[in-house]
Formats: sequence, structure tokens, C-alpha cells
Amino acid sequence: MNNKKFSVLIAGGGSTYTPGIVLTLLDHLDRFPIRKLKFYDNDENRQNIVADACAILLKERAPEIEFIATTDPKTAFTDVDFVMAQIRVGKYEMREKDEKISLKHGVVGQETTGPGGIAYGLRSIGGVLGLIDYMEKYSPNAWMLNYSNPAAIVAEATNRLRPNAKIINICDMPIGIMDRMAAILGLDSVKEMDFRYYGLNHFGWWTDIRDQEGNNLLPKLQEYVAKNGYLLPNNGDQDTEASWKSTFEKARDVYALDPKTLPNTYLKYYLYPQYVVKHADPNYTRTNEVQDGREKMVFGECRKISELQTAKDSHFKSDEHSTYIIDLCRAIAYNTHERMLVMTPNNGAVENLEVDAMVEVPCLIGANGPEPLAMGQADRFQKGLIEEQNHVEKLVVDAWVEHSYVKLWQAMSLCKIVPDAGVAREILDEMIEANKDFWPELKMDTIRI
Amino acid sequence: MNNKKFSVLIAGGGSTYTPGIVLTLLDHLDRFPIRKLKFYDNDENRQNIVADACAILLKERAPEIEFIATTDPKTAFTDVDFVMAQIRVGKYEMREKDEKISLKHGVVGQETTGPGGIAYGLRSIGGVLGLIDYMEKYSPNAWMLNYSNPAAIVAEATNRLRPNAKIINICDMPIGIMDRMAAILGLDSVKEMDFRYYGLNHFGWWTDIRDQEGNNLLPKLQEYVAKNGYLLPNNGDQDTEASWKSTFEKARDVYALDPKTLPNTYLKYYLYPQYVVKHADPNYTRTNEVQDGREKMVFGECRKISELQTAKDSHFKSDEHSTYIIDLCRAIAYNTHERMLVMTPNNGAVENLEVDAMVEVPCLIGANGPEPLAMGQADRFQKGLIEEQNHVEKLVVDAWVEHSYVKLWQAMSLCKIVPDAGVAREILDEMIEANKDFWPELKMDTIRI
Repeated sequence: MNNKKFSVLIAGGGSTYTPGIVLTLLDHLDRFPIRKLKFYDNDENRQNIVADACAILLKERAPEIEFIATTDPKTAFTDVDFVMAQIRVGKYEMREKDEKISLKHGVVGQETTGPGGIAYGLRSIGGVLGLIDYMEKYSPNAWMLNYSNPAAIVAEATNRLRPNAKIINICDMPIGIMDRMAAILGLDSVKEMDFRYYGLNHFGWWTDIRDQEGNNLLPKLQEYVAKNGYLLPNNGDQDTEASWKSTFEKARDVYALDPKTLPNTYLKYYLYPQYVVKHADPNYTRTNEVQDGREKMVFGECRKISELQTAKDSHFKSDEHSTYIIDLCRAIAYNTHERMLVMTPNNGAVENLEVDAMVEVPCLIGANGPEPLAMGQADRFQKGLIEEQNHVEKLVVDAWVEHSYVKLWQAMSLCKIVPDAGVAREILDEMIEANKDFWPELKMDTIRI
Repeated sequence: MNNKKFSVLIAGGGSTYTPGIVLTLLDHLDRFPIRKLKFYDNDENRQNIVADACAILLKERAPEIEFIATTDPKTAFTDVDFVMAQIRVGKYEMREKDEKISLKHGVVGQETTGPGGIAYGLRSIGGVLGLIDYMEKYSPNAWMLNYSNPAAIVAEATNRLRPNAKIINICDMPIGIMDRMAAILGLDSVKEMDFRYYGLNHFGWWTDIRDQEGNNLLPKLQEYVAKNGYLLPNNGDQDTEASWKSTFEKARDVYALDPKTLPNTYLKYYLYPQYVVKHADPNYTRTNEVQDGREKMVFGECRKISELQTAKDSHFKSDEHSTYIIDLCRAIAYNTHERMLVMTPNNGAVENLEVDAMVEVPCLIGANGPEPLAMGQADRFQKGLIEEQNHVEKLVVDAWVEHSYVKLWQAMSLCKIVPDAGVAREILDEMIEANKDFWPELKMDTIRI
């Protein structure tokens, strides 16, 4: 291991997640040393709230790290080793519209799934491609770790439109669930488990989980999940937000559909959409919850730090989940070949899915990116679900590339969450209006009615 | 062409379609000569109503044909060249339950699609396999032309469980639609059109339609369908039943989703299920319409013939649509290599679907069965839809073979027509109760909750 120190850019510096990631980076400087940390955002005011606080924090905790917050791409992307991309094109204002337009029509309104995910995808593709292009222009040897949502659609787009880019699309949900599995099993860490998993992002299944001696942990976990979903034992979820608690609990019913595997929590939106809609408030969605909760808390805490000119009494905590980002940086920087779950072009990793599907499977991560482990075949139920969803995601990319109204209508109609092509069209037409500053202008000339 | 005369068995002799098929056979004796005609059914009383009338009809029109109606398999299947299978296991009584249980839960209740089709499939598989086994035992050189519904599931089952059987699964819907296309174009007959088509049964698309000089007829048809669906020009549908009229009209909105092709009418159930449910009467379904219409008419007419002991004044007409069955018999008997749309193991006919999917594509039919024409690749929208639906059909066969509750629940939950796995389970549990005389007993032990 050499003594190189790294320059890291956080793209989407104004995110509510940024302070937690900065603290995580600081906690792991011994494993992943940093010489320079930069924030980049296109919303200067929003970023400044976070950046002003982080500047104080960094000065107190690691004054040796050079810190820059900028809206200038050249300044941001020059001399960078890793770009951590977490952008939200259209911000919470548009997320709220995604959710509420869908719910108005009786359809799941959710950030990454269904019509909301499709709308967000059409906004994100251009944004993420833009980041890649800046990175390739100003720091061609850098790697981008992208966890901007909706990751599945973004991954399909980057794979199709920037196939040679040094980008790894990754998601924290499976890691979050595996943290719960570790707690359920009484293990200290997710790192004590070997796992096999396949699917698309937010759309996958564990097929095998082993301890470090190779013993099969799946039956014990399944027995627990059949009763409790992924709720933590010993009342461990008492401080968890209600919407997340409900999601972890509902995993029980998702699991019931295939007792051989364990499911990703997001599958509830695809398999129980009527249940989800019934339990949703069309006037107060997850966006409102985040705005009133995390956003208020984070921005309030940032302002307090700026006022007091010290972060000593700050309530900010490092984000345990985001250590996977450090692990990923380390795996690339030091060629560790650590086994991690990331999105990657299939190429047979799941034998009976399309070669160019962006699947989420365990990969060995090294200096040249991910090497997928072969997961064998998807079972029939899973294959049917995945093929449909993957084609939705590909049609969204088609629609973005071709500016095609029909392809987008096809995507929404094909989507398992949308119950009727007529409803799909009503939602689509409202979303076109709502997204006119973000989406490509869609051509109607391919449609006759 | 030799002078051989054929022995034909109609399995499901008590069907309301039987008299029409008999008349069609009589109309085409010059093209397809018959020496013996047999009816087989497991419901003697029902069959006798039809058989008594047909006996009189045959005596008057073609006394040289030996006629037998029987419930004995050996009598029925011995010395037979062609078996025309049109059975309905559970009869209209169960069809009505399929429809009404589904509708009660706000889900499309339809004979061959959604939960109704799945329920009917589980009833039909054993019945059709039984016919095959009788045929192979008593007339191993015979061919079975099977148009028992739900044809897609039945075809998946026969292909998996009797892969070497001489059975061709065929459906009259595409031919019925092409008859309409011919009328729309002002052609005399469907035989003046060359066509390319791919999909599953009741789940496919025309990609090309040409006249006998090779000119492209698709644009003119699409222009018409975009406005009128498959409704006939010049008020040609004034005598069509209301439910069929609505289906032909709705093809307009199905077509709109993919302006490059022309759709099968059944796709409305998959793409516009909410519309279909909204326009359905949960207390008076298609079964009731058939019972009050065709069944009453056909059985009444049969009884009249038996009373009068003559069919001279009968209102029975030969069924123009069913001439395709004669064409199919002729193609096999005389090795004509006529191009016909039948179900066949894919084996690359649609390059990007599973090799063992039972696809519906144009085939050349000869003495050794169908040789599929290669249709190239399914487009993305179609592939996503087909993969999902084909996996539903395969899971139904899995459930039948393995007696698996979970597989059947997976099938219902995966199905595009069913909006939620919770709803799927409610429907399934009611259907298990309703079908206990017909379905295999499903094992619950693979499920934990």
C-alpha cells in the first residue's frame, strides 16, 4: 500500500447527505487518506449552507485537507481522483410532484419506482452524463462512484451512452438490509457475511448468505423474515421513521411470494402497489417527510455551525451506511478485489437475462473496476419480473435518446406498478407539463391519435 | 393428391361450436373428404343434444359418412386420422366462476386472460393431456388440432409434458381479425394477404401485411385502425354482439401504444384492465351472455331438429372462421406447406425470446407438422410484455406439475392483469375452493406464512 493521498469531489454538494459523508470520510482517513475535498453543485445557495458548515468542521477536524466548494465545473473536476455523485435534478420540489401526480391517479408515488422513478430518470440521465463528461475532460483518470437515483435507469443510460466511462453505479439499500440481517443474526458486521444476490437495482433477491466458516445462514434469516420482515429484533426500530418501518415490515409479505430467497425491500412497490397506495397520504408524501425531517434538521444544524463558527457541539454523526463508499474507493485505489454489490453490465452474470442488462450482482472491485461473479440463472418468477422492469428502464433511455413520447408511454404502461395504459397516459401528460424545464421535448409525431 | 378419405373425431362433442364445425366439414368435403365422423365428450347428456341433431343433419346431407357419438375413449379414439379438440373442463359453470371471482376483487374476469385464464388453464391441462394419451394409445398416427382454451397455457403444458405428441395448438382469433382486415381493405379473402406476426397466443402483433403482389398494406390498415379499431366499415358490425364490438373498437387504443405494428384484440385485457373492469358487469358476464345467446340458440336449434327429425329448415350455418381447421387438416394430410399461424416451440423463431417459449408465428404446415418462419427480434415493449406473460404461463404449468401453491401465487402476482399480490392471493384462495373438483391439490408446505 502506497502513501498516496486522494482528491475527492462530492457532486451534489448541497445534498442533505453531504455532512454525513464528510464525517465518514474523516473517520476513515487512516484507511483512505484525503488531501483535497471539493463540493460541486449547480445550486450555489443550497450548497453554501452545507459547505460553510463543512468548512468549519474540516478546519477543526482535519485542517490539512484542502477544501473547495464551487459551481464551476473546471474548478470542481480538475485534479480529482474520485467523484462521489449524488445529484437530484429538480430537487425535492420535483420529487414531490413525481409522488403527488402519481398518487392523484391512484398509482404508487415513489422516488425510484413506477411513474415517479421514470420521471426522475428522465431528469437524471442528462445530469449524470454531464458529470461524466466533465470528469473525462478535466480528470480522465478519475473514477465516479454514482449513487444518484434512480440508479437503475441511470445505470442503463450510462452503460448505453458512456460505455467506457469509469463509473460505478452503486446503491446503499442492499447494504442497509444486510446490516439488518447481521443484527438479526447477532453478528457484529455485514462483513461477517458472504452473500449471493442478483437482480436490477432496487429489484433483487439474495439467494445465499453464509458466515465466515461457510455455514448457511439463509434458513434462520428466512424464518425470522417470515414473521418480522426486516424489522430489527429487540425493539431496535423504535427510532426508525414510520414509512421505513412499514417498508421493513412489509418485506415479510414480499418474502412469502418466494420462500427460497430473500427480497429487496423495494419489491413491495412492484408486488403490493395497491397496499402501498392505500397506506399513502396523497397530500403528505415521503418528500414532505424528508423536508420536515432530515432536510430541516441537516440545514438547521449547518446554520447553527456557521453561526457558532464551530462544529464542536454539532449533532452531526457520520453515516455508518456510507462506509461502503469508502470501501469502494479503497477497492479501486488499492486494487483490493473486495466483494461488493454494484451495478454492472450483465454479460452472462445472470445467465438468462439480456447480456446488456445492468444487473446488480456481487463483483470483485479492483483498480480496473468491477468483475462480476456469475450468479447462474434467475428463477422463473424473478426472470419474468426482471425482464419486464429492465425493459421499462431501457424504454425510458430510448425515450430520452429518441425524444419519443410513445416509448415513454410504453415504459409507463409496461411498468408493473401502473395498472392501465390509459392511466399511464394521464400521468404521463401531467408529468410532461410538470417536467418541461428538465425533460427533453417529446415528439408526438410517431403517434397517430 | 390421393383419394384417401379421413376419419375425424371432435373431442368436446357437446360444444356449442360443434354444429358449425360439422357444417363446415360438410361444405368442404370436396377438399377434405370424410369417411367417418365421431363425437367424444365426458358429458353424455350434453353431447346427445348436439349429436342427435347432427346425426339427422348428416343423414340428410352426407349419408355415406359413418357417424358415432360416444363417451367411451376406446370407441372414440380408435381408427381416427384427426382429432379436433375443443374441450372446456368445468364447462360454463366454472367459466362463470372464473369471471365472477375475479371481478369481485376488481380484476378482469375473462376466459383466457388473468386469473380466469389461469384457473381455466389448471383445469384444462389434465383434460388435454388425457386426450393426447388416448390418441397415442388408439390412433398413434393421428394428429390433434387443439383449439381448447386457454390455448397459451395448454400449449406450454403439451410442449413440456408431451413434447413428441402430434398436436398443433391453434386459435381462431388472429384469423378472425385478419378477416376484418380483408374487409377493411376491400379484399375478398384473408388468403389474399401475406402476413408476419409474432407473440404468444392471445398476445401478439402483426408486423407486416402484404397483398399478393407484395405491396405493403400495413400503413392503410394502421390509418384505419387508429380511427376505428377493427370495427368493420360500412356499419358492418350492426349484428355483432356488444362485448365483441367494444373489443374491436378498443383495438384502436391498443394500437396507439405501438404505431409500428397492429395488435391482437386480447391485448386490451393486459394493457387496459382498469377500463375493462369499469365496463364489466360483475353480475352478468360473458358466460351469461353466451348462455343466454349462443348456447340457448344452438341447443334450441338442436332440439328443434330432433323434434322435427329433419334439419332442412335449420338456421345452423357453417362457421366461416372454422375453415382454417379444414385448411390445417389439408395441410397435414396433403403436405401442402400452407402458411398458417399456429403455436410452436420458439427455437429462435423470435430470436430474443426463450427457446422453449410456445410462440404464435406463421408456420409452413406439412405432413410432419409446423415449420416456423423466423420473425426476427421482438421490439422492447413487446419483449417485456411477452416475457412476463410467458413466465406466468410457465409458472401455471409448474404449479400443475409440482402441485405448488407458491408457484400459482407467483403466476397470479406476476400477471399484468392482477394489480397486487395481496389481491392475487385473495382471488387464488377463492379459486382453490371453487375448483376443488378440477385442480390438483396444492401443497402449502413450501410457504411459511
